Order: sequence, then structure tokens, then C-alpha cells
Amino acid sequence: MRVGVLTGGGDCPGLNAVIRSVVRKGVQEYGFDFVGLRDGWLGALRNEVLPLGVSGVRGILPRGGTILGSSRTNPFKHEDGVRRIQDTLAAHRIDALVVIGGEDTLGVAAELNRQGIRIVGVPKTIDNDVPGTDYTFGFDTAVGVATEAIDRLHTTAESHRRTLVVEVMGRHSGWIALHAGVAGGANVILVPERPFDIDQVCAWVKSRFEFNYAPIVVAAEGAVPQEGQMILKDRSLDEYGHARLSGVGEWLSQEISRRTGTDARTTVLGYIQRGGTPSAFDRWLATRFGLHAVDAVSDGDFGTMTALRGTDIVRVPLPDAGTGTKRVDPSLYDEFGVFFG
Amino acid sequence: MRVGVLTGGGDCPGLNAVIRSVVRKGVQEYGFDFVGLRDGWLGALRNEVLPLGVSGVRGILPRGGTILGSSRTNPFKHEDGVRRIQDTLAAHRIDALVVIGGEDTLGVAAELNRQGIRIVGVPKTIDNDVPGTDYTFGFDTAVGVATEAIDRLHTTAESHRRTLVVEVMGRHSGWIALHAGVAGGANVILVPERPFDIDQVCAWVKSRFEFNYAPIVVAAEGAVPQEGQMILKDRSLDEYGHARLSGVGEWLSQEISRRTGTDARTTVLGYIQRGGTPSAFDRWLATRFGLHAVDAVSDGDFGTMTALRGTDIVRVPLPDAGTGTKRVDPSLYDEFGVFFG
Amino acid sequence: MRVGVLTGGGDCPGLNAVIRSVVRKGVQEYGFDFVGLRDGWLGALRNEVLPLGVSGVRGILPRGGTILGSSRTNPFKHEDGVRRIQDTLAAHRIDALVVIGGEDTLGVAAELNRQGIRIVGVPKTIDNDVPGTDYTFGFDTAVGVATEAIDRLHTTAESHRRTLVVEVMGRHSGWIALHAGVAGGANVILVPERPFDIDQVCAWVKSRFEFNYAPIVVAAEGAVPQEGQMILKDRSLDEYGHARLSGVGEWLSQEISRRTGTDARTTVLGYIQRGGTPSAFDRWLATRFGLHAVDAVSDGDFGTMTALRGTDIVRVPLPDAGTGTKRVDPSLYDEFGVFFG
Amino acid sequence: MRVGVLTGGGDCPGLNAVIRSVVRKGVQEYGFDFVGLRDGWLGALRNEVLPLGVSGVRGILPRGGTILGSSRTNPFKHEDGVRRIQDTLAAHRIDALVVIGGEDTLGVAAELNRQGIRIVGVPKTIDNDVPGTDYTFGFDTAVGVATEAIDRLHTTAESHRRTLVVEVMGRHSGWIALHAGVAGGANVILVPERPFDIDQVCAWVKSRFEFNYAPIVVAAEGAVPQEGQMILKDRSLDEYGHARLSGVGEWLSQEISRRTGTDARTTVLGYIQRGGTPSAFDRWLATRFGLHAVDAVSDGDFGTMTALRGTDIVRVPLPDAGTGTKRVDPSLYDEFGVFFG
Repeated sequence: MRVGVLTGGGDCPGLNAVIRSVVRKGVQEYGFDFVGLRDGWLGALRNEVLPLGVSGVRGILPRGGTILGSSRTNPFKHEDGVRRIQDTLAAHRIDALVVIGGEDTLGVAAELNRQGIRIVGVPKTIDNDVPGTDYTFGFDTAVGVATEAIDRLHTTAESHRRTLVVEVMGRHSGWIALHAGVAGGANVILVPERPFDIDQVCAWVKSRFEFNYAPIVVAAEGAVPQEGQMILKDRSLDEYGHARLSGVGEWLSQEISRRTGTDARTTVLGYIQRGGTPSAFDRWLATRFGLHAVDAVSDGDFGTMTALRGTDIVRVPLPDAGTGTKRVDPSLYDEFGVFFG
Repeated sequence: MRVGVLTGGGDCPGLNAVIRSVVRKGVQEYGFDFVGLRDGWLGALRNEVLPLGVSGVRGILPRGGTILGSSRTNPFKHEDGVRRIQDTLAAHRIDALVVIGGEDTLGVAAELNRQGIRIVGVPKTIDNDVPGTDYTFGFDTAVGVATEAIDRLHTTAESHRRTLVVEVMGRHSGWIALHAGVAGGANVILVPERPFDIDQVCAWVKSRFEFNYAPIVVAAEGAVPQEGQMILKDRSLDEYGHARLSGVGEWLSQEISRRTGTDARTTVLGYIQRGGTPSAFDRWLATRFGLHAVDAVSDGDFGTMTALRGTDIVRVPLPDAGTGTKRVDPSLYDEFGVFFG
Repeated sequence: MRVGVLTGGGDCPGLNAVIRSVVRKGVQEYGFDFVGLRDGWLGALRNEVLPLGVSGVRGILPRGGTILGSSRTNPFKHEDGVRRIQDTLAAHRIDALVVIGGEDTLGVAAELNRQGIRIVGVPKTIDNDVPGTDYTFGFDTAVGVATEAIDRLHTTAESHRRTLVVEVMGRHSGWIALHAGVAGGANVILVPERPFDIDQVCAWVKSRFEFNYAPIVVAAEGAVPQEGQMILKDRSLDEYGHARLSGVGEWLSQEISRRTGTDARTTVLGYIQRGGTPSAFDRWLATRFGLHAVDAVSDGDFGTMTALRGTDIVRVPLPDAGTGTKRVDPSLYDEFGVFFG
Repeated sequence: MRVGVLTGGGDCPGLNAVIRSVVRKGVQEYGFDFVGLRDGWLGALRNEVLPLGVSGVRGILPRGGTILGSSRTNPFKHEDGVRRIQDTLAAHRIDALVVIGGEDTLGVAAELNRQGIRIVGVPKTIDNDVPGTDYTFGFDTAVGVATEAIDRLHTTAESHRRTLVVEVMGRHSGWIALHAGVAGGANVILVPERPFDIDQVCAWVKSRFEFNYAPIVVAAEGAVPQEGQMILKDRSLDEYGHARLSGVGEWLSQEISRRTGTDARTTVLGYIQRGGTPSAFDRWLATRFGLHAVDAVSDGDFGTMTALRGTDIVRVPLPDAGTGTKRVDPSLYDEFGVFFG
């Protein structure tokens, strides 16, 4: 059996670990052979296929990124997309695909699977918001990077008695903000799932100063104030086209300064959260996902994706496009209210 | 309500994070007040009690070790131990205890709870072998330290084409060895649960050299060869009294050298696995354990300990002494056989 | 003899290490006693003085920030500033000061010393641009943080075949950019000392893509394009008052995108470069600076500051305000031209 | 011109960085071409030569170890060694060698250079004991690893109120012990240059406990007690042939336990000090050494090696075999006496 492997969406620590374990177990235990599709669905559309063997995956376990390249291409937005993918698979006699990606990539996979392409999925996203799995790989690494940054910022905040706002990734869900905020001992944590009250934020900031400490505010990039409070400078957004230029982090430090009369600064962690060597946990999870994905291929159990449940790897149906993201539960968020302020 | 807190057994990253969240939620939400018992059960026996308030737990979240001190004292091995503990609790009007410890400490807690002392437990061990919980805090940090060490050792092994044996913690269970070995891309992983065949180990080592790579062997300190193969120099053990002096790691490198005619060296990671700042995951888990433990105290749900199940914190009965350790499941170990050799 | 210690300017890893070694040697070897002035010159103006003894400096060696607080206050900009400082010193019978700071703080120290206040200086700045010393502590830590960030960004750049621009600290000098750029294997390094040609930058970016690699551009925040090329959106600068909002990093990714037709993104490392635990090198250097500073006090050698020359700590005159920064030598910068593109 | 490159002796972070910069500058600026000699002088004897071009050195900057392999082979201990090397050079038309190694490798290089082989040397050793240069690359990485380990051990020592002895590398010189001990806040630092008095060590340990802290003792593997105090179990040494089995670290914890009646344990850091990714400082230094070494080749300035003097790279004569190691100066060691105990 010949199996194609592709990685789609934003890069994520652990992608190479999945590729490695898929190929090693597939070749050594099942006698499969493998090819890689370059740059996600783009390579499938463009018939860009790479050889992929055991020697090619040696040494890649600790390396961030993906040796196959990635893209955000959606084949359903290209004319004849599905047929072109079928042509690529036929041309290379590819019997099945292992598709490693986030919500979008897996949503495409679910639809292609319904149209007859045999696919097993592996969920990835540093945001941890794919439904059906306890965690996705990449998340632990991102949380670790953000936590280490918060550790560093504490000393600057204390030395200058100023508020430091840290904007972390998470457009639609606050998992990174919540985990890194709790682990980093943040005094305020803001997530997209819970529109915040800027007056409450400022009250927490002030109370922190009263205890002679300096506040750290962790905000997911998708965090928003309650209705009526947001006054984003839209002009600037248009001018640059980059959301973070006047993102919520910047807005927060301005409002905190203005409303409390104390100094506040913002750090936007950005891309350092998604690159680099995966944490031990992410290597473990990615490796297991790969091993179980190739088992599913061998079992002919297509239309599924690997998922973590407790300490077990299970198979669940591929999530449909539009299933939506896994959000932070309000009761989980509220657990940590005791640390605010 | 006055609550006593104690930490017992070997130190473990995350102990301070538990203490902090127990105290902060207990004081701020339930109006409890707290005292610390110094050095685990020893302080309970000796009536050594420390004040423990919100200001005392500020800043301790990222710090390894325990501000309360620890010991391996077992009160049941002291005459009148239980009565002396009851006296200490009475003297300080302590209504309940939060006991943070491993198997031994919690086994004592279970028995004391049966004898009428109101106790909620929090499991800790870097070894991850407390039954009833998916993970214990401290484990992720230990695995991270060991994985980083293995990453470093790969380059030395390759440059000199020699085998490097890494002995990691785990006397009774192989969790650290298995996780760090998988994450570090080890070529052989040896755990106490599965006595190894030294001939098989040497075969794996040789096959690795044939591919022009250099082998990394990760061994839990409790790993043992199959019957008849062990030839530990007992004299040396007696002479020094420290198990690791001629531990399995050292034995392995000698046997590999002798049997394969290739160079092999051993590194014993030792105490660096159990100290230092906890990983983000361990801070998260320890913080949640603390929050839920104090909820259990407030609910009067004594005789329980906090446990992780998937992403939930639940309460389970305190494990009895002698319940035994949570071992690595053979099928989990076998998942990774494809990477050996 | 009673000695006052103060830390001024931006915080910097290693400040606490200096304070610790000044106090320990001063007390243990010379029998001095010490007080701290809170928040740099501000505390000297406001008569805010803290007790400072051996027990107070235990455990602070690895901690970032400064236990004394800091500010950018310049006493010469306050009416009666010098007299108020003299009053504070007299009130507490302070015989001499150890002043730890950057260019501004030390410039003030030089002038106060001329006016009769007995001062020994210790240079600090993460920017490494104090003249007279090979290195300042804090710099190695900042370079390490920036290099680790660049390591992480490489994998994202490669996976998406996009340019990643990293803006690092350095308003007036390019030391951090140069060292971290060289250590991180950057393809373009831009420093304030050498106005850059945006066309050349784009040519380097394109040549990198031709080799099938993705470019990393490291820019000091003070890097500027050659005359006529800069088109900074001044409006936005005014609107927010924060230079980095439309800083050179952001400008570069926009220009690279626009001129080369390839995707480019920016990460601004910001405050994570100046907080957190100091590197081993910085702890070593800061500790030695402290030991030698207190020797200078004991010798009555005022008006001097400690400096690193090779592996020796020497004493040089306090730099006058306006002496200017130590800049990157053009020939040093040119050494690395072979790696560009 | 064709230039051969070889790396000899123990592996060391930064070797690949040197190889990369030698090749890149040599090819791009001087039009040289390059071959690698495999495994140090061994490849020169055995005529094992690898192609070495710009594409082969891409991506190796951050990687530990050496892509050329290494060995401790001394050609002067092989019959006809020099002639065989000359034959290898002639067979591949190699005009000059860049030799990267420690004392032994460079001593051989000095002698071969006198016999007419054109050689430029680059000093490397994690021990920092090559004379003629302020620092060697690899040292800063080793110190960083050791310091991080000491940081971790502090919390274990404190929690259990026991002494932790850390044995670090340094058979003939105490540079790693001294730097890491100072940076890690050790309470006792023992180096080969200064035979220690075990009674004094125990006095320091006891005084530390009196202050309610727990001692960290850092010992170079080559540290020895004063005459008459050493009671190394020679039998064990013979039995295993590995020095560290009953090395000074182990001996110290036994003696401290025995003489003070307090618990003491040893951690031997071992190989983790010499592998893995180089620190930013080491990448910088190694890169510059490579650039300057290839300049020396171009200048025909053979018989020299690159050296660091302050912030400059200079050329000094290759050190003769037997020149001896650069030792820790007693006055430098004594600077830190104030922190002992």
C-alpha cells in the first residue's frame, strides 16, 4: 500500500514527529511505502510529490516545522480541486492519505473522505481548539514558551512597578492564555470566550499595585472588551493590514495607562510561540498520534482522526468543516478567579 | 476553620504551587486560616508548626522544592505517633489537613483518616506512579529535563560513534524512562516492568551502528536484566551504600562495551530531575490540585485525594499503603518497539 | 563605613547579583554596613532608604530585576536635586555610594562625584553600549533570549517559505542584533550604525528563496534605511506614542512583501529581552563587578567604575554624560557579510 | 586552493559553527574548495575524506557535535604516521589544513606544521584550558548546563536540608567548576589547582546549615584533597576503569556525611556538559574563529591558531605539545572566597 502524507495550516511543533512515526511504523511494521505531498493541499492540487522513506525521517523528531512544507490552501476553493487531487493520487498510485492539520485542513479531509478519498486525520494546532481530543500537540510547547516569557516579564514589571500586558496566540479560543496565565502567575487573564470589562481589569491592576506588586495581564489575541468599550483605531488596522498592530494587547496597555495613571507596556509574543523544538509532551503525543494513525490506515478505518482521551489514543470521526472550535469552558475559567487582582 | 498543610517524601517541582493555591483559595474564598507543618509528618510529630498566609505564598509558584520542608518520616513507625500528631493538631486547633505526598505519605494519610483525622490528599511524585490519577505533577518537569539531556547526548554519541546510556529515575516504574526515551528518540528504552535481555540490547546497539548512527539507551534506575544475566558487583554496592554507584546504567555500558566491542559510556541524571522550576504543565496541574483540594476540605469530603482524569480534576479515595504503584502497561511499552534498534 | 547602593535605568539581568556581591564582600571582608536607595536617584531625592544586609541578599543571585527598584529619574532635572541627595546621605550617615546603571545614571554619578559625593560606578545595560568595558552584564542574557527566538522562527519561516523579521532591542547600537543575528544564523542583520539599503535587503531575501531557504532578518529597533527610503507612518507614531508600533521591524516586513511579492511577517521581541534570570556569564560578570566595586570603595578610589578588559576587571573613570555610546565597529560588522543573503 | 578540515578530541558545542564559517568564507570570498577529514587525525591516516561544500554546512550552526566525526588518534603514535598523512593530502591535492582541536590535537598540528604541512589551528575545549586565548568555544555552553543543574539542585538541597555535591568536568583545570560554582551560588568550589582540606569543606558545610540553608558543593572532577586526606577506593577504580565511579564527587559526599553527620548526595553531570546546541556566545566565538582561520590560510600564515583577546580575534603560534594547560589563577579563585561557607 502506498500512503501519502501532508501537513496543512500554520506550522506547529510536533509535525515532524508525526511524519516520522507514521513512516517508521508504516514501513517497518506494515510494509507500506510513502510519499509526501508538498505544502499541504497545494501539493495535492499541483501534483508536487516528494519521496518519503525511513532515512528521510531520521533526526527530525526534535525539529520544529514540517519537512513537507505547509499552506492554507483549500482545494474546494479551486476549480476542479477534488478532481485534481484525485489525479495526483492516481498518478502516484497513492491508496490513502494521512492528513495532519487543524480545523480547516481536517474539514477538507472530512469532505474529501466522503467523496471517496481514503483519509486518516491527525489533529494539530497550537491553539488546542480542535474538538474531540483532550489536547493537540504544539499546544504544550506554545504554553511553555509563553510561560517562560511571563516569568521573565515579572521581574521587569516589579523593578519598574508597571503593568506588563502579554498578548498570546488564540484568535477564537483562550487555551494558551489561560494555561500560560495560570502557570505564569498572571494577575489578569483575558480570553475570547469571556468579553472583559475594562473597568474590572483596571480595578485588578490597581489592587495589585496596592499590595506593592506589579501586575501581569495575559490576553489572548482574540480577547475583546464588553460591548461599547472597544475603541480600536480602525484606521491603523486598515493602513497596515496586520491585526496585531493595534491589537488588544496594545489597546489594553493604553487604556490601563489612561484609566489608572500608571505605566503599562505591551509585549506581543507572536511567532515564537509556534516554531522551534517541541516539548517532551508534544513529542510524545505527536509520536503516538502518528503510530495510531498508521494503524487506522492499516485497519482501513478511514474518515477518522486520532484523538487523546485521558492517557489513551482513540479514533473519532473527522470533524466536519464548521463544527467549530473547542472553547474554554466558563467553569474552568472561573476556577482561577481567585488569582485575579 | 484552620487547616494544616504538609509536604512529604522526595521533593518535586510543583509542591509550592499546590501550597499557594490551597492557601489563596482557602483564605480568599472560604475564609479558612492555615498553618504549615514543617518537614512532613516529622513536624506533625514534633509539633513544629509554621504560620502560612497569603503573603507567605506570594512568588512561590515558579519555585521548585517546598517552603514547608519535607521528610520521609512515617509516624506509624514512631511510638505513640498517632497520638502525638493528634496532640499537635489539638494544640494548634487544626481542624483538617491537606497532605501533599507520594504513595507512602498518602498511605499514612489514609490510615490516619480512618483513625479520625480529617485529611484531603494531593498526589505528587516525579515518577508518575501513584494509582488513580492520569498524571502527577513533577513528572512533566522530570521528563523535560531528561529529554533535554538526551537531546544533548545524541550529538556526543554521533561525534564519537559510541553508545551513551542514560540512567533516569524510576525505581519501581518506567514512566520517566518511557516518556523521555520516546521524546528523546532513544534507540533502546528499559523499564522495571519489563526485564530486558542484554543480548537483545546489544543486537539493537549493533544494528544502530550499522545504519551509521550512534545509539542512545535510556534505562530507568529500576530496570533489570532477565534472570541469570545480572552480575552486579555487590561488593561495591556495600562499600558505598549508594545504589547508583554500580547501578544498571553503569552495568549496561560495561556489558555493551564487552559484548559488542564498541565504546559505551553512562550518564546518571540523578537529582537534576527533581529540582528546579516546574514546567508550565506541572504548574497548571499543581495549581488545580490545590484549588480542588481546598474545595474538598470545604465540602468535608475527607479521605479523598485529588486526581486528574482526562482534563478533569476529580476526587478519589486516598490510596491505602501497599496499594502499589501504577506501572507502565505492557501494551503501551510495545507501541514504541518500532523505534528500537 | 556606611555605603548606599542604588540601581538606575531600565532593568537588566544581573543587577541583583551585583547588589549581593557588593553587600557580602562589604560586610564580611570590610565590615561596612549598607543601605539601599529605592528606585534609583528617585529614592535619593525622596529620602527613601531601605535596610540592606547579608540576609536580605541571600537567594537573589539568579533573580532578574532589582530588589531596590529602579527609575530613570535625573536629579539634575529637579530643583535642588544635588542638595536633596546630600541631605539624604547626611540623614542616613551614608559615606559613599555604589551606583549601578547605564550611561545616564553613570553620567549623573560622574557629575555628583565632581560635586563631592563619593561614588563608585558599575556599568549595566543589556545594550552593551557603555564605553570603557568589553561587555556589560545583561547583554549575554538578552542575546541568548533573542537567539533562542531566532532558532524558533527558522522553522516557521522554512515551513511557510516566508521572511520573518525579528526586531530586537538597540536604539543607538546594534550589539544585540549583531550577536544574536550571527548566533541565530540570520540572513540579514541591520544595525543603527549602518543605514541600510532596502533594495539590498530585498535582494538578499530573494537570493535566499532561490536557494530554497527562508530568510530571517534581524533588525535593531534603531536600524534605519538610507536617506530617502524611510516612509514611517508618523501619524501612527503620534497616535500611540509607542515607537515600536510602526517600528522598523513592521516597516521592513511591509516593504519586503511589497517589493518582493513574498510573504513577510514581523516579531518584536520587546521586554522579554530584559527580564528573567541572568545567564551564567552575566552572573559571573555581575558578581565580579560587585566584588571589585566594593574594593574600590575600600580603597577610596571614587569617581571610577568597574570595567571588563579581556578576563580582567579594571577600574576606569566614570563616563561623563554625553560621552556617547559604544558603537559597533564597521569592520566587525563587515566580518559577517559573508553570511548575508 | 584546496583546504582540508578536521576536528579532533572530545566533542564540543561550536565545532560545526567553525566548520560552517570556514567553508562559507573560504568558498564565497576566497574561492577555495574544501574537503573534510573524517574522525580527526584518524581520517588523515586512513585516507578517509569527505566532500565539504556550502550546501553541506547549511543548517549546522546550532547543532552540537561535529559533522566530520572526531577521535583522539595521535598520528605520532602510529608507524609512518606523518608520511601517511602526507600521502592522504597529496592524494586529494590538499594544500592546507584547518585543524580544530584541543591541546593534544593542536600539539600534533604544531609538530606537523614544522614538518612542512601547512596548518592553521582553531582551539576548542569545553574546559577552557588552552593557553593563549581568553576563552575557547564550548566552555560557555558547558558552564550554562552546569549552572542550570546547580539552580535545580538548590531546591532539592533546601527541601531536604542536605548537602548536594555536583561533580563537573575539568580534569586538569577548574574553569567550569569556578564559573558554574560562582554563577550557581555554590557554597564550596573545589578545583584541581588548589588541593582542598576536607576539614575546611566540612566546616563550610556546617556553617551553611547553621544559617538554615543547605550547601551546594561544586567540584571539578580533577579536584583532590590535600596530601594524606585522599582515600580513594582504588580497587573500584580498577574494577570498572571509569574514573568517575569513585570520583571525587562521590568521595566528598561520603566524607561530608561521615564527618558532619548530615546527609549528602552527589550528582555527576557527565556528558550532558559537552553535547547539544551551543550557547549564543559559543556560536559567536566559533563563527569568528572560523572566519579568521580561513583568513590566515589565505594569508599563508601557517603555524598559527586563532585566539580571543578581549573582543578581538588574533593569531598566536600553535601551542606545542606539552605546553600545558591554562590554569585557574590563585588570585582569581580567591576573589570568591567570600561566598564560601
